[in-house]
Amino acid sequence: MDLHAYCEQIARQAKEASRLLAKAPGSARNRWLQRAVDELQKRKEAIFSANAADLERAGQFGLTPAQIDRLRLTPSRFDGILEGLGQVMALPDPVGQVIEGSLRPNGLEIRKVRVPLGVLLFIYESRPNVTADAAALAIKSGNAILLRGGKEAAASNQAIVEALQAALLQAGLPEGALQLVSTPDRAAVGELLKLNQYIDLVIPRGGESLIRAVAEQATMPVLKHYLGNCHVYVDRAADLDLALKILLNAKCQRPGVCNAAESLLVHADLAEAFLRKAEGPLREHGVELRGCPRTCREIAWAKPATDADFAAEFLDLILSVKVVDDLDEAIAHINRYGSGHTDAIVTTDLTAARRFCAEVDSAAVLVNASTRFHDGFEFGLGAEIGISTDKFHARGPCGLLELTTYKYVVYGDGQIRT
Amino acid sequence: MDLHAYCEQIARQAKEASRLLAKAPGSARNRWLQRAVDELQKRKEAIFSANAADLERAGQFGLTPAQIDRLRLTPSRFDGILEGLGQVMALPDPVGQVIEGSLRPNGLEIRKVRVPLGVLLFIYESRPNVTADAAALAIKSGNAILLRGGKEAAASNQAIVEALQAALLQAGLPEGALQLVSTPDRAAVGELLKLNQYIDLVIPRGGESLIRAVAEQATMPVLKHYLGNCHVYVDRAADLDLALKILLNAKCQRPGVCNAAESLLVHADLAEAFLRKAEGPLREHGVELRGCPRTCREIAWAKPATDADFAAEFLDLILSVKVVDDLDEAIAHINRYGSGHTDAIVTTDLTAARRFCAEVDSAAVLVNASTRFHDGFEFGLGAEIGISTDKFHARGPCGLLELTTYKYVVYGDGQIRT
Repeated sequence: MDLHAYCEQIARQAKEASRLLAKAPGSARNRWLQRAVDELQKRKEAIFSANAADLERAGQFGLTPAQIDRLRLTPSRFDGILEGLGQVMALPDPVGQVIEGSLRPNGLEIRKVRVPLGVLLFIYESRPNVTADAAALAIKSGNAILLRGGKEAAASNQAIVEALQAALLQAGLPEGALQLVSTPDRAAVGELLKLNQYIDLVIPRGGESLIRAVAEQATMPVLKHYLGNCHVYVDRAADLDLALKILLNAKCQRPGVCNAAESLLVHADLAEAFLRKAEGPLREHGVELRGCPRTCREIAWAKPATDADFAAEFLDLILSVKVVDDLDEAIAHINRYGSGHTDAIVTTDLTAARRFCAEVDSAAVLVNASTRFHDGFEFGLGAEIGISTDKFHARGPCGLLELTTYKYVVYGDGQIRT
Repeated sequence: MDLHAYCEQIARQAKEASRLLAKAPGSARNRWLQRAVDELQKRKEAIFSANAADLERAGQFGLTPAQIDRLRLTPSRFDGILEGLGQVMALPDPVGQVIEGSLRPNGLEIRKVRVPLGVLLFIYESRPNVTADAAALAIKSGNAILLRGGKEAAASNQAIVEALQAALLQAGLPEGALQLVSTPDRAAVGELLKLNQYIDLVIPRGGESLIRAVAEQATMPVLKHYLGNCHVYVDRAADLDLALKILLNAKCQRPGVCNAAESLLVHADLAEAFLRKAEGPLREHGVELRGCPRTCREIAWAKPATDADFAAEFLDLILSVKVVDDLDEAIAHINRYGSGHTDAIVTTDLTAARRFCAEVDSAAVLVNASTRFHDGFEFGLGAEIGISTDKFHARGPCGLLELTTYKYVVYGDGQIRT
């Protein structure tokens, strides 16, 4: 079969499965999650063998040590997969939820009911645990999913998906609901992105270039998780100890993730005091500073920042630093250079806090808390498939609700319009 | 100034204005609506003169009589504009609404707050009253709007927008919040569709080809109002009088609109009885029938339907008709040929009603009511800018809420992640 025919076939099967899945009761979807845990446990040895085979081949793909680490399935990561499935099972069923409703004067009963989107295409890299996470969120929310993992994880993903598919049959759900795009041909993604008659949403998870390429080619909506160029702004009215504690956590606790801080803004009135206070601890944490001229005057070892530094998502122990004259400049800087992901203000001034939250145009704005809290679990929303930096459909953490749409269901007894 | 520079300038001005608009209180946005009514009334004569000039030139553009009719501003249509502005003013302010919120175990206070999308680009044809409607919904929901009307309505739109802009100044709102894309150059739309750094959403309103062209070129999300190929399915358990009343209303009350029925499905068990009953009234209403072979056996004057007829949005007194063997076939037919807009079942059988509503994958599904009710006003949602046939972001009537997004606002007192 040629590539186009293969892609069309799996996408059509997914669409057909999505119709059955949408009418399957929540109990069947939860039964699948339970059986998936059982099947994964039963096949644990085979899954680890498959992962070992992937790791052996990793050299061929020129993976970095960090990528090889992400590819490796450890016993604790395997337990994490099972735990994740259990957590998704425990979440409330979004399908069929009545979002709102009314009884119209003419007697029509109107309900706005939450329903699955249909078919998701999930494109991701390396980490095999993501395969199970994404499948769990998709099926729990009543969606079929096509999984396109990286070639470097092909054997691991195959072994995991076989377990998840065996569980589908046991739960009485259609096998087409969960399919691995198994051709090694790189052109498969391009073919799938044309099939908007079958695929309702694409979710690319990976580097910026992957996301841009998908967004350009896709004929269906894309849920994007772009850059996280997150800011900590230390306001004139900040408590400096609290500001330092938040900055160090936001920058250093896990520098490689999207909600880590990449840029520090400091109000001019306390720039000298704060930068002097912060430079030692930042240096101890191994943070490289790239500062504006005023910053470089305070901290001798800071390098001069370029415009590109202020726009960068370093994902590393690098921090851009700028001294600003007032709150207006801080907000304008964030709205210009930021990525609309997560930004925090440290202040005791309520007016400044309120203005910052109202005027910074980002998915999450925080007052006196680390940017690292922008996360579905931390916000109490349950597991997430990504953090949207778009404003359309979903913004911020994307969990079960964000994988649904709604329909209007109207009951009457012969109403006509006059 | 060249076209690119012009488009970039108005889009940037709109973005800047949107920042001011987003922080303006609801009272200022409502004051604008009030002043807009005053200004339109004050300039009524000039607006009618402009419209007369457009009508005089209409011949040059080769407009059909129906298009000329839509272009014509009558006293009652003018009053309709003012009434529409008043209705939007009376709607609750969506901006700042707390959608949900929680207090986390670590003391973080989390709120999900409704905020404007930013800048809208609205592309539409002919009818000058739509100019004021769209502006009212955009500004009330805190969004700046770029209006791209048809060249045939250039003078009318200019006169109306001048009145609306004068009202902006009086309400203390930025003039850039509401701009007419005034160049006659057709390439302007293409330029604007590239500017996703300024424009957050495009809403094309017009024929299918316009919408497809916009969707293909746009680099930002598009809110689409595609075809309305709406079905009425007369189930085995239907009351035939009620079914006929609903069919005639859905097909004939206003055949040129998107929620008019285009296709009739009849259960085989009562096909003979229902088609015999319906053929006289349909003929009296001047409806042309295009039927499946079984339909043509019952109704001598029905023409044979092609596959294209079953997929068509006629927007005219034409109805495709198919006899189906059961509910499954009806649902499968609608999901295959329908446009996901509006579909109705006529039945007294609760199981059939529930299955139809659950399994027909459309924005609105109705039981024992005319498809014509799928409308923001009829659903009690207030004025609408269109009816989305997409599943992403918004589905069905798009009013004020659908022109917003949300952000997470988090207050803490020094929380860090461990």
